[in-house]
Amino acid sequence: MAVDYPEPVRALIAQLKRLPGIGPKSAERIAIWLMQRGADVTGPFSEALEKAGAEVRECGVCGFFSTELSGCAICDGPGRDHALLCVVEQPTDILPLERSGAFRGHYHSLRGKISPLENVGPEDLRIGELIDRVRREHFAEVILALGADVEGEATANYLVEVLGEFDGVRVTRLAHGIPVGGGLENADELTLFRALEGRVGLR
Amino acid sequence: MAVDYPEPVRALIAQLKRLPGIGPKSAERIAIWLMQRGADVTGPFSEALEKAGAEVRECGVCGFFSTELSGCAICDGPGRDHALLCVVEQPTDILPLERSGAFRGHYHSLRGKISPLENVGPEDLRIGELIDRVRREHFAEVILALGADVEGEATANYLVEVLGEFDGVRVTRLAHGIPVGGGLENADELTLFRALEGRVGLR
Repeated sequence: MAVDYPEPVRALIAQLKRLPGIGPKSAERIAIWLMQRGADVTGPFSEALEKAGAEVRECGVCGFFSTELSGCAICDGPGRDHALLCVVEQPTDILPLERSGAFRGHYHSLRGKISPLENVGPEDLRIGELIDRVRREHFAEVILALGADVEGEATANYLVEVLGEFDGVRVTRLAHGIPVGGGLENADELTLFRALEGRVGLR
Repeated sequence: MAVDYPEPVRALIAQLKRLPGIGPKSAERIAIWLMQRGADVTGPFSEALEKAGAEVRECGVCGFFSTELSGCAICDGPGRDHALLCVVEQPTDILPLERSGAFRGHYHSLRGKISPLENVGPEDLRIGELIDRVRREHFAEVILALGADVEGEATANYLVEVLGEFDGVRVTRLAHGIPVGGGLENADELTLFRALEGRVGLR
């Protein structure tokens, strides 16, 4: 029988291999790196993992990450515009929008998008919660910040329909166009089509 | 002040960023993946890390990873050839050699190589331990399985010198040549030079 790493090292490699973007080779390299540094490094790492896993939950309102039992740093944050709601697919979409500085309203993560191929229907998403919020919180505008792929568009179309019952609530979507800093040569035809359609007058 | 992830998530991202080959983007992606799965995944991962960090140490004899207080699965393994010692730079070099199936002797990890540029001299490596072992364990042959780079060669030259005092101990190094499965077009000139020098008669 060939010698292998001691069992605790193999168990650690197995855990590392599960992480997204970490293959078997990387998992082994990282485990060995950790073993060569020992408990001074694995201890704090292990604690950070346990603490984050135990303390971080999904905000019941917007779906962002929170350490509070109810609410979160965004829902309860100061200076928020209560007239605006931005709907995103994933909680991870929230921080990039927040960092853009262009939006100071509230967010709502759907936790996915409608995808018949992956058996994800409207009932699997946080759409019921969205409708409850729109009914209760009287937003003036709901911005759909969904992906520009087929599933994102299908989700947007569905939301436009179900939000149609709320008179006086404007429903908008993000602009499509050329990414800032990107040349025309990198844009696909559909992006160019949308960029032309949405052209903006300069004078 | 812009909103950021809750503190436990940021602490976890900081730990992940320290790992080799994990950049800030990957660290964030992995942390979010873990947060979306929660304690069912972070718990076992955290435990595996803590256990490995606490239980795995360096074998005092060969330098491989071990969970024993003294010795390891290789030094104390059955069916080992006590006449052969294979010297490697790192404990991670041991398993690839072991998996080759070509060697069933003992190993000795130096924990590095002589590198004046990085201020690593012979006294920083496990060379004293190597000399003690060769004196005590009466190996017939010491195989230097070191890297074929400048530092590996310098280390090999140094070891040939210090092992010179032991009459009757053969000192050898791994063959240099074309990697199996590799075409000539990928081999550099020095490798081809060594491959020619070390050519093997076929009939």
